Amino acid sequence: MYHVTVRGHVMIAHSLPDPFFGPAQGLHGATYVVEASFYRRDLDEHATVIDIGAAGQALTAVLNDLAYRNLDEHPAFAGRLSSTEAVARHIADRLLDGPLTAGLARLRVVLREHPDAWAGYSVDLDG
Amino acid sequence: MYHVTVRGHVMIAHSLPDPFFGPAQGLHGATYVVEASFYRRDLDEHATVIDIGAAGQALTAVLNDLAYRNLDEHPAFAGRLSSTEAVARHIADRLLDGPLTAGLARLRVVLREHPDAWAGYSVDLDG
Amino acid sequence: MYHVTVRGHVMIAHSLPDPFFGPAQGLHGATYVVEASFYRRDLDEHATVIDIGAAGQALTAVLNDLAYRNLDEHPAFAGRLSSTEAVARHIADRLLDGPLTAGLARLRVVLREHPDAWAGYSVDLDG
Amino acid sequence: MYHVTVRGHVMIAHSLPDPFFGPAQGLHGATYVVEASFYRRDLDEHATVIDIGAAGQALTAVLNDLAYRNLDEHPAFAGRLSSTEAVARHIADRLLDGPLTAGLARLRVVLREHPDAWAGYSVDLDG
Amino acid sequence: MYHVTVRGHVMIAHSLPDPFFGPAQGLHGATYVVEASFYRRDLDEHATVIDIGAAGQALTAVLNDLAYRNLDEHPAFAGRLSSTEAVARHIADRLLDGPLTAGLARLRVVLREHPDAWAGYSVDLDG
Amino acid sequence: MYHVTVRGHVMIAHSLPDPFFGPAQGLHGATYVVEASFYRRDLDEHATVIDIGAAGQALTAVLNDLAYRNLDEHPAFAGRLSSTEAVARHIADRLLDGPLTAGLARLRVVLREHPDAWAGYSVDLDG
Repeated sequence: MYHVTVRGHVMIAHSLPDPFFGPAQGLHGATYVVEASFYRRDLDEHATVIDIGAAGQALTAVLNDLAYRNLDEHPAFAGRLSSTEAVARHIADRLLDGPLTAGLARLRVVLREHPDAWAGYSVDLDG
Repeated sequence: MYHVTVRGHVMIAHSLPDPFFGPAQGLHGATYVVEASFYRRDLDEHATVIDIGAAGQALTAVLNDLAYRNLDEHPAFAGRLSSTEAVARHIADRLLDGPLTAGLARLRVVLREHPDAWAGYSVDLDG
Repeated sequence: MYHVTVRGHVMIAHSLPDPFFGPAQGLHGATYVVEASFYRRDLDEHATVIDIGAAGQALTAVLNDLAYRNLDEHPAFAGRLSSTEAVARHIADRLLDGPLTAGLARLRVVLREHPDAWAGYSVDLDG
Repeated sequence: MYHVTVRGHVMIAHSLPDPFFGPAQGLHGATYVVEASFYRRDLDEHATVIDIGAAGQALTAVLNDLAYRNLDEHPAFAGRLSSTEAVARHIADRLLDGPLTAGLARLRVVLREHPDAWAGYSVDLDG
Repeated sequence: MYHVTVRGHVMIAHSLPDPFFGPAQGLHGATYVVEASFYRRDLDEHATVIDIGAAGQALTAVLNDLAYRNLDEHPAFAGRLSSTEAVARHIADRLLDGPLTAGLARLRVVLREHPDAWAGYSVDLDG
Repeated sequence: MYHVTVRGHVMIAHSLPDPFFGPAQGLHGATYVVEASFYRRDLDEHATVIDIGAAGQALTAVLNDLAYRNLDEHPAFAGRLSSTEAVARHIADRLLDGPLTAGLARLRVVLREHPDAWAGYSVDLDG
């Protein structure tokens, strides 16, 4: 199995209004450093997993929709919590909506939120 | 599959008294930077894999039992080598003894011992 | 010259309501990874620059006052912009208000806001 | 499952003469930071996955064959593109030619080429 | 003193044809991760050291002139060695040719060429 | 001013038998990641600050004398505490005993002991 990972980042505000989250219930924010990994069982005719430039642009497009925003007011999180896990899933789903999924065996998204915590979501795509 | 990782660190002394380990047979030590990753197939009602605060506390408790100690004299390693792999397994086993395992699909522990070497242990928990 | 650095982090929300900041005018947030460096010309009787535990606690106390908050509503930034540079200065000033400054030659605070940008403030204290 | 990872690096020149690669068609180069991970289901009699010294030497030997060279003229890439994915596969294949494969369940090689992009190849060895 | 640092990277080929450089005499390459730090004694009216967007664009422009090229054929290095130190100086000089120098007290450029080596150049600008 | 930094690491055991150090009074250990920076005002005839290979070998030689040892029994620390600051000074002094000091303006040694703490020593050499 081969993979290629591209990395970007995004700065957002949000709150987590559930007592479960303790002090993070208040309006705060995060720099999410986002890694998107594309997996394929074999290389294509260019000896690559994916067009890395297109992968980077796809990730940037997904992140630009979140950048410098308050996720509490973003339609993707209306009525639900924008936990790190949920944001990872959102980014993966948006990438899977795009044109880069042909032949992919797996997609994995990791969000690093501070030096001592990160979260991710992965999905197998070929069975 | 979702995951959440929490990171801590611990500074220990130990020796590896087997000629296999060459210069590391002598009493020396390490800073282990420890990553514990908790995997679940679905998110819970808080849109999370796990209570990240509780996960961090559980990891800290396991590491505090090792911190600033000579592992040669720690009961967990009596009669056996405290290789990085064995310490990773020990930390995973102690985490699995705790209350955070309900619904977990996988646990993974990685110990970074210097910039050019790390080791880990992972266990699948749901089949 | 000797120095000791302690590192922490804090997650905040803020806006930068000046057209100069482009898209960062909106309410967003950041994870600031904060490094505080204490410099002394000579070591003390414990062969250290500073009590590293006390230094870490002092940094944590300053960061806890900012943690999980919207800096737009924090009194320290009333009527002024909470740029990264200004937050670095605020943290340094709060550390200098504390008991750790005896004999210090320099204090330096760096805030890493994303992988490709950071800012800092330093002050010479002995001449 | 246990793993041990050793890390090295290598500086090479190459070109990617296919219009697919845009500006990277020109002769340029890279520092590849290379991580080789060895996986085993159980530990050996030394409580380790592998002799980490031997693993590091094996990786160094493979990298030394590439170091400070123009991959366009290296026999391993005659008639084919030295994409990051292909170089990762080459390094894994060379490691598998060596003596360290007994009992391995998996081998994984990751090449970090710049802070925002990396690629890898992994192979399951026991089933 | 305040500073702001922006980071970018560039992938180049070059040779160092002087026996002093041993194996690096051959045509090889590097990923240079480049940090440009701008220092000012006081903040401007936006509470910043510099327009960080403009700083990033200035660094990108300087790096784009080097990107995916063989420095042996770049006019900036005609007749002289493109050592890491010399490339750092070149980048600093090009930044100083630009419009961002008003009021600067210092400029510092660091090039990280592999995990275990980096080099830099700094210049004081106000006396 | 130019600088070149080389990085290495060393794993040691030690104790800090002074109540000031709290739990670190016990025998424990550390991985020190060591950065040695050599500064010169001008480049030499090879367009470099220093022979980077020789610098790396000099650092390795100093570190090998400490590697896999209990510093409590090392003659350099007989009768005194091997605090991180003191170990940094020791490494700098040993480097200054060597042949690489001609023309140096400054030497700086930093020891990273865990992700949230590091210490260093620097000395100006030309007035």
